[in-house]
Amino acid sequence: MKRPLTIRIDLKSPVPTYRQIVDALRAHLVEGLLAPGDALPAVRRLALELGIHFNTVAQAYRELAEEGWLDLKHGRRAMVLARGAPAAASRGTQRHFERRLREMVAEMRAGGLSSAAIATELLSLAERLKS
Amino acid sequence: MKRPLTIRIDLKSPVPTYRQIVDALRAHLVEGLLAPGDALPAVRRLALELGIHFNTVAQAYRELAEEGWLDLKHGRRAMVLARGAPAAASRGTQRHFERRLREMVAEMRAGGLSSAAIATELLSLAERLKS
Repeated sequence: MKRPLTIRIDLKSPVPTYRQIVDALRAHLVEGLLAPGDALPAVRRLALELGIHFNTVAQAYRELAEEGWLDLKHGRRAMVLARGAPAAASRGTQRHFERRLREMVAEMRAGGLSSAAIATELLSLAERLKS
Repeated sequence: MKRPLTIRIDLKSPVPTYRQIVDALRAHLVEGLLAPGDALPAVRRLALELGIHFNTVAQAYRELAEEGWLDLKHGRRAMVLARGAPAAASRGTQRHFERRLREMVAEMRAGGLSSAAIATELLSLAERLKS
């Protein structure tokens, strides 16, 4: 693991806590901050650090294992797997994500971010994807 | 209302159903497809159309009313309010959204969308914001 994992949990968010952990860890995995062979923090330790129930962390790890990111062996730390390139997204999946992106932009605008600030953020994300 | 409301509900999604309705309607509101003075579909009718419990729709409407988008008067249809420009987002809110956008891009990559396809989508959203 190249640097300490940063996971932020918002207990007031409507997004379930296990899902927030999944989203944060998946970002680390996709961006390569967690690489194949890396061990994840032990469930109970991460739960303690985040101040949540260990079942919530365990649920997040199981979800990521189902997505093919983690190897969960009983009694051992969760281990990052080498995950092949995902199958190309169907047109339906693509449209699903396009809709969710549009909804997130709407949420950002409603939350007081200026169109210019959001555009700048989108452009910088697009730049990073192209490099 | 300029065109029929399209709301897609994914009952298998980890995002709560009421939240999916909120996100979809908020996008319509921010993009002006729902304008001040428009009436929203009656709770029971929308619930029937979506095949969900009417309490779920009512919860979504209450959430949007709390965000200042809707006027809910007992016994009347929910009405879109003229909502002043939101207060500028704090630095924390901005960072929160930046993180969620990054996580969504990671989810799209993990879901099989190519970096090029995601970048194209981000650029087109940024374009629309600038126009």
